[in-house]
Amino acid sequence: MKTKLRSFLLSSTMAAGLVLSSQAVTADVDLGENNWSWGKDDVLGAGNLMTANSIKAALAAVESGKIIELSHDVAVGAPYINPIQTPYVITLARTSKNMEKFLRDNAGATNEVGFYLERIEMTTHVSTHIDALGHVTIAAELYNGLDREDAASDIGLNHNGIDKSPPFIATGILIDVAAYKGVDNLEPGYAITVADLQGALKKQGTTIPKGAIVFVHTGWGKNFTAKPQHYAHTGPGIGIEASKWLASKSVVAIGADNMALEVTPGEDPKVIFPVHQHLLVKQGIYIIENVKSDELAAQKLYQTTVIMLPTKFKGATGTPLRIIALH
Amino acid sequence: MKTKLRSFLLSSTMAAGLVLSSQAVTADVDLGENNWSWGKDDVLGAGNLMTANSIKAALAAVESGKIIELSHDVAVGAPYINPIQTPYVITLARTSKNMEKFLRDNAGATNEVGFYLERIEMTTHVSTHIDALGHVTIAAELYNGLDREDAASDIGLNHNGIDKSPPFIATGILIDVAAYKGVDNLEPGYAITVADLQGALKKQGTTIPKGAIVFVHTGWGKNFTAKPQHYAHTGPGIGIEASKWLASKSVVAIGADNMALEVTPGEDPKVIFPVHQHLLVKQGIYIIENVKSDELAAQKLYQTTVIMLPTKFKGATGTPLRIIALH
Amino acid sequence: MKTKLRSFLLSSTMAAGLVLSSQAVTADVDLGENNWSWGKDDVLGAGNLMTANSIKAALAAVESGKIIELSHDVAVGAPYINPIQTPYVITLARTSKNMEKFLRDNAGATNEVGFYLERIEMTTHVSTHIDALGHVTIAAELYNGLDREDAASDIGLNHNGIDKSPPFIATGILIDVAAYKGVDNLEPGYAITVADLQGALKKQGTTIPKGAIVFVHTGWGKNFTAKPQHYAHTGPGIGIEASKWLASKSVVAIGADNMALEVTPGEDPKVIFPVHQHLLVKQGIYIIENVKSDELAAQKLYQTTVIMLPTKFKGATGTPLRIIALH
Amino acid sequence: MKTKLRSFLLSSTMAAGLVLSSQAVTADVDLGENNWSWGKDDVLGAGNLMTANSIKAALAAVESGKIIELSHDVAVGAPYINPIQTPYVITLARTSKNMEKFLRDNAGATNEVGFYLERIEMTTHVSTHIDALGHVTIAAELYNGLDREDAASDIGLNHNGIDKSPPFIATGILIDVAAYKGVDNLEPGYAITVADLQGALKKQGTTIPKGAIVFVHTGWGKNFTAKPQHYAHTGPGIGIEASKWLASKSVVAIGADNMALEVTPGEDPKVIFPVHQHLLVKQGIYIIENVKSDELAAQKLYQTTVIMLPTKFKGATGTPLRIIALH
Repeated sequence: MKTKLRSFLLSSTMAAGLVLSSQAVTADVDLGENNWSWGKDDVLGAGNLMTANSIKAALAAVESGKIIELSHDVAVGAPYINPIQTPYVITLARTSKNMEKFLRDNAGATNEVGFYLERIEMTTHVSTHIDALGHVTIAAELYNGLDREDAASDIGLNHNGIDKSPPFIATGILIDVAAYKGVDNLEPGYAITVADLQGALKKQGTTIPKGAIVFVHTGWGKNFTAKPQHYAHTGPGIGIEASKWLASKSVVAIGADNMALEVTPGEDPKVIFPVHQHLLVKQGIYIIENVKSDELAAQKLYQTTVIMLPTKFKGATGTPLRIIALH
Repeated sequence: MKTKLRSFLLSSTMAAGLVLSSQAVTADVDLGENNWSWGKDDVLGAGNLMTANSIKAALAAVESGKIIELSHDVAVGAPYINPIQTPYVITLARTSKNMEKFLRDNAGATNEVGFYLERIEMTTHVSTHIDALGHVTIAAELYNGLDREDAASDIGLNHNGIDKSPPFIATGILIDVAAYKGVDNLEPGYAITVADLQGALKKQGTTIPKGAIVFVHTGWGKNFTAKPQHYAHTGPGIGIEASKWLASKSVVAIGADNMALEVTPGEDPKVIFPVHQHLLVKQGIYIIENVKSDELAAQKLYQTTVIMLPTKFKGATGTPLRIIALH
Repeated sequence: MKTKLRSFLLSSTMAAGLVLSSQAVTADVDLGENNWSWGKDDVLGAGNLMTANSIKAALAAVESGKIIELSHDVAVGAPYINPIQTPYVITLARTSKNMEKFLRDNAGATNEVGFYLERIEMTTHVSTHIDALGHVTIAAELYNGLDREDAASDIGLNHNGIDKSPPFIATGILIDVAAYKGVDNLEPGYAITVADLQGALKKQGTTIPKGAIVFVHTGWGKNFTAKPQHYAHTGPGIGIEASKWLASKSVVAIGADNMALEVTPGEDPKVIFPVHQHLLVKQGIYIIENVKSDELAAQKLYQTTVIMLPTKFKGATGTPLRIIALH
Repeated sequence: MKTKLRSFLLSSTMAAGLVLSSQAVTADVDLGENNWSWGKDDVLGAGNLMTANSIKAALAAVESGKIIELSHDVAVGAPYINPIQTPYVITLARTSKNMEKFLRDNAGATNEVGFYLERIEMTTHVSTHIDALGHVTIAAELYNGLDREDAASDIGLNHNGIDKSPPFIATGILIDVAAYKGVDNLEPGYAITVADLQGALKKQGTTIPKGAIVFVHTGWGKNFTAKPQHYAHTGPGIGIEASKWLASKSVVAIGADNMALEVTPGEDPKVIFPVHQHLLVKQGIYIIENVKSDELAAQKLYQTTVIMLPTKFKGATGTPLRIIALH
């Protein structure tokens, strides 16, 4: 498995022409400040920024009632990072014909009733999904200072599972970095900078209000179905400084049309998923991955009202979900 | 398995004092009229009743921005009908400590990064969920006249899977039949009548607008976590005539705080799931089960704005989901 | 889950008329001596007792070539200890008709070929199975002094998985304690003593040779299919002293026709699975559970040649398996 | 999925220099004669050739008691044919530390007992395995004339599942075609002929007794762990005439060190798995795949006593298993 994961981390680094230092890597990445400002028992994190008033305002901003879909299907063949993630499997576990027979033979059914039921095996980080705050750790530490020793049982997270996440209704801001750069998609390994975000926002004439949900459009999402394994193991994405700058805007959640939100491989290939560490652990900001933002970008809908309602899988580290943008 | 399923169908029949005829049951239940009025390629069914205008209006009706949650957790031990359904399993497939070691040893990670990931095995009809239109059959027929021969492959439904369902934003109407009857909960096996629905609506001062999502409150939902297996295998619910009357109001979806929306065992115990056949196959109206409607009932919030966003599991016969009511 | 597990441990204690002391239980159970005599890197444990010579002798002892089956089916509804174990699920994931169509449409197949494939979700401790040496711990310690910190990754045991177990070909000794006691089956909660084993062996005229596989027949196995949940949560079985006495005979593996080999609930209900701790951790002796020994007992075949070939699930804590006795 | 499967079927065809006719392929492959000679209710097929006498003789032939292992591990990353098969997943569902805590907190355990349990999701056709007679169809027909309509329910095969297979104890014959051809391994797409088998047997000085289990060594098995996906989607193997010739020898089972026993892609790439159809459906002869025959070949052990004991997964289409050869 060693080879495969290394390849995930390094291969596109080569492709992008970056130079890997052979000197010992020092773990001097600055993961940013803690923002555990909602009390020691808090499980909502930046979700606290959404209030009845903010929700009412977000809904009131809807003008046409038209919906843009932001989710891919959850389907066989969905990209996953092998071997640290696991594949998605769906099979038809009950079929109309067999169930009609079963209900007739075993329950005396006289009304020709049959049904289909599937069986799904998955991690929740499949297709378009949101990460729970308890998904990631820095050493033994989780969001809000929770310790790894108390964080989980064998059937899930004890405190920061996705079942604790709020419903999300907020202003959605699209930052189309691909358009700003004048490309169809950013290259794998390209780390989006603060200047990129600021430049794109300026070009768009958009600002980020407090409590927003931000989607960064890289164009990489077109590979989600076309080249799922390539898509999964590399991609453009935000760098650590860009994540800090977005966090400083007091956003609720940040997503992108790529596998990990952050650039893969990372700016320092030996610092793995630092943006996850900063946003989830340090800031309590939710991460959304595999966002299907192409239609929003095509329509230049830079400010919308976004709704996402995480399924309450108890103790789960995330959930696939349907995201919509209303305008 | 024969014993167990019979018990599911008949046990509470006994408890309710109903008499099972020993004579041959004739399948003369009237499953109602087809309402396949949206064209031969339609996959939305009653979802067509939601338009940009209706959505805009539903959102504009939100006054406070406050949210009432209508979903149970999806958790180990969730009720299921054995053996026709299958159990829910979640385990922690990746753990912070092991993954920190893995990323350090295999990818040279220097930033003490770890993470948790779960593995879930499920049918989508677990906990609070919505049924796809293709879930149920009458003989070989599915919604919109689709034939069983073309309906599904081994990895799911070909046409009427939950991935085809629309986002739901509509007026939500709660019909509190338990309160109308003056009981904490209706008894298992009690079939809610048209008169019950009309009486409760009149008492509440509520009407059902076209395109609404209707929730019937039976009080049975308190057993969802307290007595999951008992809850799963019997319960009060709507009868076939009540389902036809609700369908005649041009609603989009109907849910209840029980396992099957409809009464279990059925009015005629040998006619299994006729309400499913009427609503899904004949009417294209979505069914929602295991709704957690207690808080809505306690607050007497009979009219709200309901949002539910089915996860797009490709080809799946439903999906667990988060339902919210705004007022 | 608390209630359910307590019930598993205590309910039949009541039924058996045992008295539970209310005083604080002291952990003064004697789990016996270590027998880590095969070197610090050993992973075979008592499997070392089987040699080419002993195998040749065991095979040479077969007189008729007739086979007695000692395994139950692995099937839906198989008993499991809820919630510490997990349920067995099998569904037909690929079906002849759909696959025939798929191969015709996607690969141009002209030979009307179809096939069935199932999907199985399980723990390996389902139905008739063997425990790997690494299945159980005493505090942080595993067989041969292995420490919990190094014992496992997220995909299984690192050292003592069932993939490391040898093929088993050895003299099989049946000890029919039910017959010795003159009962159809021993009562749940009955702890088989050393005297019981000695008495039964004497009555049978059997001795236990070094390197044998021992099966203890309790009669409880008749409930495996008849009352699976009752069967799983209680039962007669060997007590801790009986396990030590069997271990002193230098046996390779010990099995019984019950869920846990050992009596459930335990002799001291607050000392859970001490026989597992003694045999697996201290002695490196394999445990076999849910043995179907009724036919062997009925035929009074007290000494046979037993073969079992554990499937090499890498890192797994056991495996369901087919056991045969030849005579 | 179309592309991938085609690639599986055709890619190595190109590599092997074969020419694909563009004209319409006629399904004129001769799948051979039926050999349903054991009665209309038979479920054993060629398993009937094993008797107490033949078993006794096979055991008596063991001279040294030494064992050669013929099985690969069942492990994450095991080859599978995508998308017609499904991936293997194993995760550690219960861990020593968490279970020790659970048993202490919920059952008052005082003896520091913990344990590990895994969760496995699989098809049974993973790693070294045997096919049940009901695995494959010719149009609607299964082994012994069973019709597809009655063959299976949603939880497995009704008649010809692997739970019906006998224990296998028989003379094992290795045919080392790679050695006969003087190569390390045969090339993918190479169809082993009758002449190859005859030549190899002659060179070895071996004959095939009635009731034997035959293993064909191609050398391809070295790619099982080294290049699992390449291994899965192509390979050398026996052709249809070779399978008929082996069947004419009244063998019980035939295996090889490749994914499908038969050559992939097939001799006529549009005739998919004809050897499966001939052996399983027409002849009732069991197929064994992914045999690890390298050690047997290296030691030139052409005749041994082979034991394999299929796990009785009820209704399953096969089972992974441990195969041993004794000499």
